[in-house]
Amino acid sequence: MRENEIITLSHGAGGKIARELINDYIKKFFNCPELNKLEDGAIIKTNSKKAVLTTDSFVIYPIFFSGGDIGKLSICGTVNDLSAMGAKPLYLTCGFILEEGFLLSDFKKILQSMKKTAKEADIKIVAGDTKVVPKSKGDGIYINTTGYGELLDEKMCISAYNVKPGDSVIITGNIGDHEIAILKEREGLKFDAKIKSDCAPLNQLIKELITAKIKIKAMRDPTRGGVAGVLNEIAQSSRVDILIDENSLPVNKVVLSACSIMGFEPLYLANEGKMIIILESEDAQRALKVIRKNKYGRNARIIGKVIKGKGLVKLKTKTGGIRILLQPQGEQLPRIC
Amino acid sequence: MRENEIITLSHGAGGKIARELINDYIKKFFNCPELNKLEDGAIIKTNSKKAVLTTDSFVIYPIFFSGGDIGKLSICGTVNDLSAMGAKPLYLTCGFILEEGFLLSDFKKILQSMKKTAKEADIKIVAGDTKVVPKSKGDGIYINTTGYGELLDEKMCISAYNVKPGDSVIITGNIGDHEIAILKEREGLKFDAKIKSDCAPLNQLIKELITAKIKIKAMRDPTRGGVAGVLNEIAQSSRVDILIDENSLPVNKVVLSACSIMGFEPLYLANEGKMIIILESEDAQRALKVIRKNKYGRNARIIGKVIKGKGLVKLKTKTGGIRILLQPQGEQLPRIC
Repeated sequence: MRENEIITLSHGAGGKIARELINDYIKKFFNCPELNKLEDGAIIKTNSKKAVLTTDSFVIYPIFFSGGDIGKLSICGTVNDLSAMGAKPLYLTCGFILEEGFLLSDFKKILQSMKKTAKEADIKIVAGDTKVVPKSKGDGIYINTTGYGELLDEKMCISAYNVKPGDSVIITGNIGDHEIAILKEREGLKFDAKIKSDCAPLNQLIKELITAKIKIKAMRDPTRGGVAGVLNEIAQSSRVDILIDENSLPVNKVVLSACSIMGFEPLYLANEGKMIIILESEDAQRALKVIRKNKYGRNARIIGKVIKGKGLVKLKTKTGGIRILLQPQGEQLPRIC
Repeated sequence: MRENEIITLSHGAGGKIARELINDYIKKFFNCPELNKLEDGAIIKTNSKKAVLTTDSFVIYPIFFSGGDIGKLSICGTVNDLSAMGAKPLYLTCGFILEEGFLLSDFKKILQSMKKTAKEADIKIVAGDTKVVPKSKGDGIYINTTGYGELLDEKMCISAYNVKPGDSVIITGNIGDHEIAILKEREGLKFDAKIKSDCAPLNQLIKELITAKIKIKAMRDPTRGGVAGVLNEIAQSSRVDILIDENSLPVNKVVLSACSIMGFEPLYLANEGKMIIILESEDAQRALKVIRKNKYGRNARIIGKVIKGKGLVKLKTKTGGIRILLQPQGEQLPRIC
């Protein structure tokens, strides 16, 4: 391996070699006037009095997987968090922590993927930072992205504290694809059928909903902790129970069989391109119609409703019983995002 | 070591244990309405049409050092980057990457230190994220902070591209303290005298300058790459030469002797509480007066001037010779910030 094909500690030392990495890689891919100046920060234009800030670090393993890579994920994750707040994603910063010895060719692939996803999500990468840590003090690449967005509708208040009995719960598509795809890749499991991560930016889908004047009450993307995790947070914040109907859950057959073999519950699996949306029942059918028109929402379903209670999530099983879906305890697959 | 005294992979899994870490540690220390809601992002109020975004990851080793720790540093670094753009720091996000086995007591000390520094800098920590990586895939703790600030004077344009021959160069105090303090700590060097990192938030000092109507043309905090690194960037961006007078450089005696023993040049050492300010010569004395009134600027000096040229930084040595200060090549101490 030639020295100029891998990351060395000099790439993080703030000198000439670090500058070359920025010029030949980061600036080249993210090419944007705010970033190209390489000042200490980026000047951005604000158009709204209410903005949203959100941050996420990505430590997923493996960094390349079926349906995406850590770069695509790092853009989608933050774009989806902004979208879940009802904001239009506008600007993004990204911080790289690279491990000494990391292949520059892999870095290039990741930057390429970030560029492509940022373009799809129509978000500008305006500021960045690169640090290098010695071998065995990292794992190839970790990425932090922080997003700035502005509310699409300043009057709309989307919050986990807003939910009331009678509201409907929508999921924008199949659950569990991301986690099973990562698990398969990591453990080298051999399924007959293929499974891809659902990793996708959902800002366009959410914009379409808000433009159609659908009144969203609560919204979250069910990543770590899955649908059950997100619903528990909402149920607890709003002091209500949420009843999910197992028969209406959209789950890919491959995910279902992987779950039954390994004893997993799809509702706890991580997703990276799905949204849980809670709204008044009377808006649910109209919302579903809008969501299904978007390519990332084709398999959207109403999966349950909000009922009176004290913060529990209940599952009406296929056999007709009721089971409590506890908050995930933390035994999930590590480094899923 | 009891299980509840160290970070485990469950702390990063998005379940009950992760929630406890957030509630018992992060929310407790950073206590702020925007953060406490634990939504997917924080809603912030914007008051200006021009804002600044900046991001930085901190991977310093060791994490505790004389004069600070990685927590204090992670706030100062981003506050100073916002300040260098002429912005008032308003909101901060922070992303933690914790290594399995990291002591919760150390995490607590770091959060405490972030809280204290954020209070001093009058900046709100509004959003956060925590990931856990397995043992030997990290090094205790890495922190990313991303800052949002608004321009103190929307008409002022501070940029490395602004500098003209005749301008004066000010440094706000002694150079090299941070890097020598870290080096001493890391290598266990035994100096007679004590040396502390200069790690400090400079937003108040910069605000005082701008309030006093001092017209700042270019400003940078000389961290990685030191004063020589920053001046090279400015000289190249503005296509001028910068002439520094070695006799006027403020350097602590301990730093000077450490440098002479180890063959370092103070102008290449990292600082974490200093600012390089370039302005018209006629404003220099008045600026110096304002800076020296601030506790972080007591030893400020005019250290050189901008002259015609093509992007070189020159040092007029104590013996009267002229030496070129090249852009640092990358052989500096790794993980200095």
